[in-house]
Formats: sequence, structure tokens, C-alpha cells
Amino acid sequence: MSKSLSRRSFLKKAAGVGAAFPFVERFPEVFIRKRTSVSSIPIILCSRGEEWGKKVMTPGWDLLSGTGDLLDAVEKSANVVELDPEDMSVGYGGRPNEEGVVQLDACVMYGPTHNCGSVMALENIKTPCSVARLVMERTDHIQLVGEGALRFARAHGFTEANLLTEEARLRWLKWKENLSDKDDWFPPADGKYEHEEEDEERTNGTINVLAVDKNGDVAGITTTSGLAWKIPGRVGDSPIIGAGLYVDNEVGAAGATGRGEEVIRTCGSFYVVERMRGGMSPQEACESICKRIVDINGGPVKVKFTDKFVAVNKNGEVGCAAIMGKKGKEPKASFMTEDGIKVIKATYLIEKPEEDD
Amino acid sequence: MSKSLSRRSFLKKAAGVGAAFPFVERFPEVFIRKRTSVSSIPIILCSRGEEWGKKVMTPGWDLLSGTGDLLDAVEKSANVVELDPEDMSVGYGGRPNEEGVVQLDACVMYGPTHNCGSVMALENIKTPCSVARLVMERTDHIQLVGEGALRFARAHGFTEANLLTEEARLRWLKWKENLSDKDDWFPPADGKYEHEEEDEERTNGTINVLAVDKNGDVAGITTTSGLAWKIPGRVGDSPIIGAGLYVDNEVGAAGATGRGEEVIRTCGSFYVVERMRGGMSPQEACESICKRIVDINGGPVKVKFTDKFVAVNKNGEVGCAAIMGKKGKEPKASFMTEDGIKVIKATYLIEKPEEDD
Repeated sequence: MSKSLSRRSFLKKAAGVGAAFPFVERFPEVFIRKRTSVSSIPIILCSRGEEWGKKVMTPGWDLLSGTGDLLDAVEKSANVVELDPEDMSVGYGGRPNEEGVVQLDACVMYGPTHNCGSVMALENIKTPCSVARLVMERTDHIQLVGEGALRFARAHGFTEANLLTEEARLRWLKWKENLSDKDDWFPPADGKYEHEEEDEERTNGTINVLAVDKNGDVAGITTTSGLAWKIPGRVGDSPIIGAGLYVDNEVGAAGATGRGEEVIRTCGSFYVVERMRGGMSPQEACESICKRIVDINGGPVKVKFTDKFVAVNKNGEVGCAAIMGKKGKEPKASFMTEDGIKVIKATYLIEKPEEDD
Repeated sequence: MSKSLSRRSFLKKAAGVGAAFPFVERFPEVFIRKRTSVSSIPIILCSRGEEWGKKVMTPGWDLLSGTGDLLDAVEKSANVVELDPEDMSVGYGGRPNEEGVVQLDACVMYGPTHNCGSVMALENIKTPCSVARLVMERTDHIQLVGEGALRFARAHGFTEANLLTEEARLRWLKWKENLSDKDDWFPPADGKYEHEEEDEERTNGTINVLAVDKNGDVAGITTTSGLAWKIPGRVGDSPIIGAGLYVDNEVGAAGATGRGEEVIRTCGSFYVVERMRGGMSPQEACESICKRIVDINGGPVKVKFTDKFVAVNKNGEVGCAAIMGKKGKEPKASFMTEDGIKVIKATYLIEKPEEDD
């Protein structure tokens, strides 16, 4: 086991930086909680800042603020980013696995029935969250994975498509050709690639969409293309009920993005919802899971990754906290109410060092 | 949503009985806790009674009571039932999916590192828990599913085999031929099948193996062939960290068997471990999740399924509770310590009616 542990540490170190991280001992004063102390429902929240937030939440908000259905609202919102090839961490256009194949994960949970649905390693279908919803509604199961999930999607009339955009293929090819000098793949003779300007870090993009309707009913979706260049079949926290998403109609909802393995082994979103049930505000609950993950990893000096949590309670209070952030470039989330769109800056535990920008 | 809910209810009703269930308002006096109040470590526990318990736990106990490794102990024990074709709910010989294909799920979690590994819908490999262990030890991921999991197993030298025994094939064929009179499959003209004497209910067998070593370190495995006749790609709670299994080295471990969908949507095993962290005994914690599941389903009259939880804390105290049981035929678990093997009768919430035997 120690062998396994040290290899993981090595990998994280190799992907991050050598220097010790400055550690913010406590989360900074939570101005968010104050700002949102006058909470309101209906509300829709997404784990992105204003630009994506507006695009993603608008169709959901249109339903929620009218006579639309709660589940339709979160689905239509999540579909926006799934269908957009410009987002390279969710749905169509997502970064592929190590073999250049895009495999998508998503789940949905619906408070009034406490039911849920999930698909994992789904290929060829642009809107995995819609397939997850059908698993919930049209089967007696919760989770379908791999080939079985694809066949189920076909049975329900989803159109198959090549999910690998040229942009994603070129990034993957660059990674593949520069992976090692012990294989037979060469980079271009002049070393130049298109899209050279973009950062090439292995993102865990993902998106969470959470909503509370006029009646105080709660629902949520998490959808992702998962870790770029992953081993085929790898599934992170996103489609796992309790990890990447949890909804409880008595309490509220929570979702996670970032390094999924850490969220899986701490049951992150369920942890957040249970802390809210115990009396914490959404903000406090999001901060508590970040602390828990850092603790499990042996403290801030051992942590070379980040996770971000968002949460909303039944009253429409929201929270957002991350493990890592940077002053002036805080991780963000956003939400819509009848007052329009507002951006939340996450509180965070560890100041990201300069060179890791 | 109401449509989905009512179909689920219908299916459960169809599989169960029509009559209202007598409800045991509180769990009966917990004699187990008393019996095991003098707890001892090392200890190994499995979610089966004496016969299977002895077979399964012996190799693990031999390691734990000597100088063997904790993780080897739970793996070797779980391998016993995975490799045994006579068990039709785990590993080789497990009941196949609706197309006659055996797909296995398993996970492992190791307290000292809080690391875990999982495989889902793995075909052709008899020992999925050993593959899950390698996912934990030899990748930076936790979960591999479907074809990707199989290829990973091949890469690590696992031998492929046909997992469908004649016994399991015949049962599947009987189910298939009697599924509907609107398809083109006929039962035999005389209606007779081999193995007619066996019950043909859709079992959720599964096994949990939990252990605490001399140092108080904790580990666990859950392994299963999943629900018989499931939709291809369906995955239950067994390989989900926090659902079918959870281990926390500060607290103990818990595992679940039974209807997996209920355990997924309540994060059952994590719930048990968190209750133990909060001060409950393993027995109380197992009972608390059973109550929670019944509550979420709208109370005992709505519950036509069962789940069983087992737990052990760091001190070697054990617990076992189920949703449904029958006086004189209580669900069982067993454990081994230096005092030999002991059987635990589960406490339960709902008395199983006669006709459901």
C-alpha cells in the first residue's frame, strides 16, 4: 500500500509544484453568507462564473420562474454546456481518454421522490444527463455503465455522434506525442502545435446545476467528460450519487467539481448535505468538506490538487468553497433568482502558488 | 416523475406480496451488542451465516491472526466466494444479466491510506475484488468500468473465463422463456425445468468482508454479480464507495447487501460509518440506516424489499441489521476472533409475511 501511496504522491507532485503551499489557516470571512442571507426561491445555481453561468442557467431559470418543471429546468440548463463544443470538460467536445475516445459521465437526483439516475463511460451521446434522467424514469435501476448505457440510449432514440471535436483531438494528440520518449510517437519536427497558447493541464471541468423551485422542491445534475487522458473506463465522482451530487428534499443539494477521486473517497456531496441537515449553512458545509479532504490527505502541504463544492439549501441560501484558490482569481459559481444573476467567489483553504497559474 | 415512481412501486409490488406488512415498530432488544460487548481485535466479519462465513473467513483469519497483511486477508476471503461456482450471487457462477452475460462489480477500501479501488460491469474475470485492488494500487484512479476494466485486468495478467455456469444459464433461460407471452421464446412443452426445486427469486446476493487487524487498522471489500437478469450495464451499490462499502480508519467499516438502489440513494455504508463516528455502536448505526431507508420510502407499508447492513468498529464491536426478517429465520452475519467463529442474527424492522418465504 505504501508503494501505491507514494506513487500517487509522486504523480500529484509531478503535476503540481515542488514548493510548499502557503496555508490559509481558516477560511476567510464568509461574505457570501451575508450577501445571500436574504435568500429567495426559486433559485438555480451553477458551478461556474458569470459567462457560463448566464448561458447555462437562462433556460432553466425561464422554466423555474414560470410554470416549468423543476427537473426540466436542471436538465435544459445542463444540456447547454453538454451540447456546446467550446466547453472541453463536459459533453460534446470534452477531452477524450488516453486513447482519444470521449467517455461521458452524468447523474441526476430529484428531491420529491429521492430518486436518481446515472450513466458512466457513455460514448457517442452528447447529452448524458438526459440519458441519466431516463435511467431514473424508465428503469428500476439507478446506474448504467459503458456499452449497456449506450444501448439504453439507442433504445430511447438518442442520436449517436462523434464527440471528439478537432480542437479536442489536437490537444489529445499533443499530449500523446509528448507523453514519453520511450514510445514511437513523435511531435512535429519544429515542435509547434496549433492552439499552442492554451494551457494544457489535465482539467477536471465538470458542471453542477442545482435548483430549488417555488414549492421548495430540490433537484440537481452533475455532468462531465471526466479527467482528460484518463485510462479507458475511468469514472470519477461526477456520476456517483453522494460524491459528485446529492439532493435531499428536506435539506437542499450539493455538487462537486475538481479531482474526483478525493470526492469519491469522502462522499463529498452527501457530506455537505448531511452537514446542512445538522444545521450548517451551505457555505459552512462546503468549507467543512474542503477541510475534511485536506485532513485526509495529511494536511495542506500534501495537497497538490483542488476540489470545489457548491450547495444550496431549501430556503435558497447558497455556498461555494474550494481547496485551492488565488486572491483576485477565486474559483466562482453563480446563481439566478428573481433579482437576476449573482456571482459567488469561493472561499478557499490554500493559496495557489504563482508558478502554478 | 409520478409516473416513474408508480412504475417502481408496481414492480416492487409485483415482485413481493399484496398484503400489508406487519411492522415491528422498534428494533428488538439488541442482544448482539451485549454479546459482543467484550470486543477483540483482530477480527474479520462477513455478511453471511456460519456455513459460508467459515469458508470465507478462514483464509483471512489465518493471515490476520498470524503475521499476514490486512488487505491480503480481506482479498483472500472475498476470493473464496468469488471463485466458488456454488454461490450464484458473487463472482464465477453468478446470475447473468437479461442477456445471459455475467457482469461483476466489486470494491475495496483500505483504512490506513483511505484509498480505494472499484470495478463495475466487469466481464470474464472471476475475481473482481482483486482487479479493484489493482485499480487502487496501480492507477491514479478509483473506478474503472466495463470494457476499460476488462482491458486493465488483461494488462495485469488475469485469465479470462466464461463466468456463466450451466446452473446459472439454466436459471436464466427459465426466466427468459417465462418472461412474457408476447415474445418468441417458449418454455418446454411439459413446462419442466431442471433445478425446479430451487427458488427463482431475483436475488441480490453479494458479500461484504470487513476486518480490523492487530493494530486497529481497518479494511473491507464488497463483491457481487449484481441483480439477476438486470439490464446490461446496470450497476448496484456494491462497487460504490460509500454505498456498498465504506471504511474509515478512525472509526471502522460498514457494508451493505440487498436492494442496491436503496443503498445508493442513501449512501448507506457511509451513513453507518458517520453514525459510528458520532458515537453510535455498530449495531445502532446499522439499525439507523434501515430506519432511514424505510422513512425515505414512505414507511413500512411501502417497503417490499430488503437491505442488510453489517458494521465493525475499530475496537472490534460488530453490528448487523436488516429491513426485513422473519422470527427464527433472521438474516445472519458472522465473525471470527481468537474465540473462534460467532454468528450474529440481524435485528430487523419488518416481519416478512408467510407467503413471501
